[in-house]
Amino acid sequence: MTDTTPPERRTRAVQERLGVHGDDAAVLFPSHNLQYTTGFSEEPGERHLLAFLPADGDPVFLVPELSAQQVRQASWIDDVRAWSDTENPAERVAAVVDDLGLDGGHLLVDDTMHARFTQDLRAAAPQATFGLASELLGPLRVRKDDAELDALRRAAAAADAAVDDLRALGADAVGLTETELAGQIEDRLAAHGGTGVSFEPIVGSGPNGAMPHHTHGDREIRAGEPVVLDFGTRVDGYPSDQTRTVVFGGDPSERVREVHDLVRRAQQAGVEAVEPGVTAGAVDAAAREVIADAGYGDQFVHRTGHGVGLAVHEAPYIVADNDRELEPGMVFSVEPGVYLEGEFGVRIEDLVVVTENGCERLNGTERGLSI
Amino acid sequence: MTDTTPPERRTRAVQERLGVHGDDAAVLFPSHNLQYTTGFSEEPGERHLLAFLPADGDPVFLVPELSAQQVRQASWIDDVRAWSDTENPAERVAAVVDDLGLDGGHLLVDDTMHARFTQDLRAAAPQATFGLASELLGPLRVRKDDAELDALRRAAAAADAAVDDLRALGADAVGLTETELAGQIEDRLAAHGGTGVSFEPIVGSGPNGAMPHHTHGDREIRAGEPVVLDFGTRVDGYPSDQTRTVVFGGDPSERVREVHDLVRRAQQAGVEAVEPGVTAGAVDAAAREVIADAGYGDQFVHRTGHGVGLAVHEAPYIVADNDRELEPGMVFSVEPGVYLEGEFGVRIEDLVVVTENGCERLNGTERGLSI
Repeated sequence: MTDTTPPERRTRAVQERLGVHGDDAAVLFPSHNLQYTTGFSEEPGERHLLAFLPADGDPVFLVPELSAQQVRQASWIDDVRAWSDTENPAERVAAVVDDLGLDGGHLLVDDTMHARFTQDLRAAAPQATFGLASELLGPLRVRKDDAELDALRRAAAAADAAVDDLRALGADAVGLTETELAGQIEDRLAAHGGTGVSFEPIVGSGPNGAMPHHTHGDREIRAGEPVVLDFGTRVDGYPSDQTRTVVFGGDPSERVREVHDLVRRAQQAGVEAVEPGVTAGAVDAAAREVIADAGYGDQFVHRTGHGVGLAVHEAPYIVADNDRELEPGMVFSVEPGVYLEGEFGVRIEDLVVVTENGCERLNGTERGLSI
Repeated sequence: MTDTTPPERRTRAVQERLGVHGDDAAVLFPSHNLQYTTGFSEEPGERHLLAFLPADGDPVFLVPELSAQQVRQASWIDDVRAWSDTENPAERVAAVVDDLGLDGGHLLVDDTMHARFTQDLRAAAPQATFGLASELLGPLRVRKDDAELDALRRAAAAADAAVDDLRALGADAVGLTETELAGQIEDRLAAHGGTGVSFEPIVGSGPNGAMPHHTHGDREIRAGEPVVLDFGTRVDGYPSDQTRTVVFGGDPSERVREVHDLVRRAQQAGVEAVEPGVTAGAVDAAAREVIADAGYGDQFVHRTGHGVGLAVHEAPYIVADNDRELEPGMVFSVEPGVYLEGEFGVRIEDLVVVTENGCERLNGTERGLSI
């Protein structure tokens, strides 16, 4: 045990890798990479807010005076340099580049850094070459550390509890519009300790469930029809994302039961395929094969899953032909679906974390059509 | 009259300026610049979506296949090239650069373009030099055309009508929390034809009004205290932004009346200073002088205003020492305020459009503390 915080430990890992690869610094701006390494989270703005993580030495945080107090509170970084609105921030960038000796080096900039900032950085370091920070941070962020797994588990538990609340509505959900049910989802997530939603909730009733990108609308939920419920919340900045397809207050048709059972078996096959060393593509294939064998291959129109971390969609992508090998600590969704246009859709999704010899589901709530 | 749409006319103006300045192309990605010139609006994403506006010839829109249909519907640009997820988008970028003969040229990239896209563009045009698109689009966007002014007027009218509804609450507003009143603001804006809010509404009651960045909270509104109401909505993508400081159901103190009257006179002085050729700094000075002369200079802690267009905050900034000269068609806020910590705040804000010989307020609702 050390008394360093997770962001500081992650930064030290970034610096070590920079050294190994011969890179001279990572330069971040408001992004998930910044949140991951500094603990400070903000939306990109018009003002220069840049964290310089050099291969050697201590990081430097260049921030607008307006944000300085907040940065000092949220971040472990000591060297916080504030610039005021009466200064030219490009000159302050140049001074940091000079202090850290970065001109002529190889600098990895945040993938989403705005051109107005990268151009100032390039002007300050005209002899430098540039790459993208994800080259280096991607492989680190893809394996979640204990603090991240803890947050992901708590987010998954909050969403699972909300699913249970929805199921408990039973026939009371019949007649509600999808949007009304989405409102209840938001309320239940908050009641179970989640912060907001990690994406616009999907409530796809009947034929709307056959459109994977439908969110929710005015359609009223009917007894016995399948409803796709795909939603998540955040805990400590980390999201959940899970899907259940359920019926409220009525018996589903035999066809609905069959398709649901098929998707459930495909999802199980996908989860069972997960272990270190297996490729992401192989997990996709394992789930897809079950559905294709039943003759519904053309109705499974999307990838099997995506990584989840600070971003709801990140590496590894569980998609055909992705030869990325799975590693312990990776977290991603396994979410096959079958979409029957004009009829209904079924999707079942859990997040899993890769363990030393397989995987563990982060979601524990029932996967059945009805309980 | 021509049958071209405003976005096409704006693009032709961009192309003309590129030629005049010796620039070879503007390269845009999802941004207000893209919306302004193409009519297509989207949030920045992970996939390459780039509009190439060359100095000569027709624009090229490189878009992900998923967005192609939507782009073709929303945009006037004919040459829409879709790339699929099985292709390397960097190669498609290189092909467009080659077709348009841009390598070796001077390219203006969108100020907010993400590094992942600018790096591909730089790799495709290794001999090119780069600037920022705002250098060229800024001076165009700062003067609003008729379509823009029409949208801005309608957004202002919707917000004015919402202010009138709030005033009509009178004593009924007493006891509501700031957040409840903010909810009513959103409802009233929608009822008057606005789309959403252009920023989180500010309801600053009593001492909360003394914090310019306060939005709204649990504090209940009391009779006779001043409440700062600062909010806006959007019409056709263009925002409104206005502030009134009002009292509900009770008589304000003499001090509140005096400060409100002072801010009202300062705002009037600011508005009266506006005409073509005057500097933005002079407008700030005109408003500030009134407040300073009354001994409250230190309590007017922010700039007098900001430009408003597709962005709620854009040039021209009405701030001390800004020597930008005002031009007909510029739209900006005039919003002096006085903030008395622990007591209350007063701010009065209208949008104005610069005319040939002065300016016109876009907001017409009463500016009084009570009607």
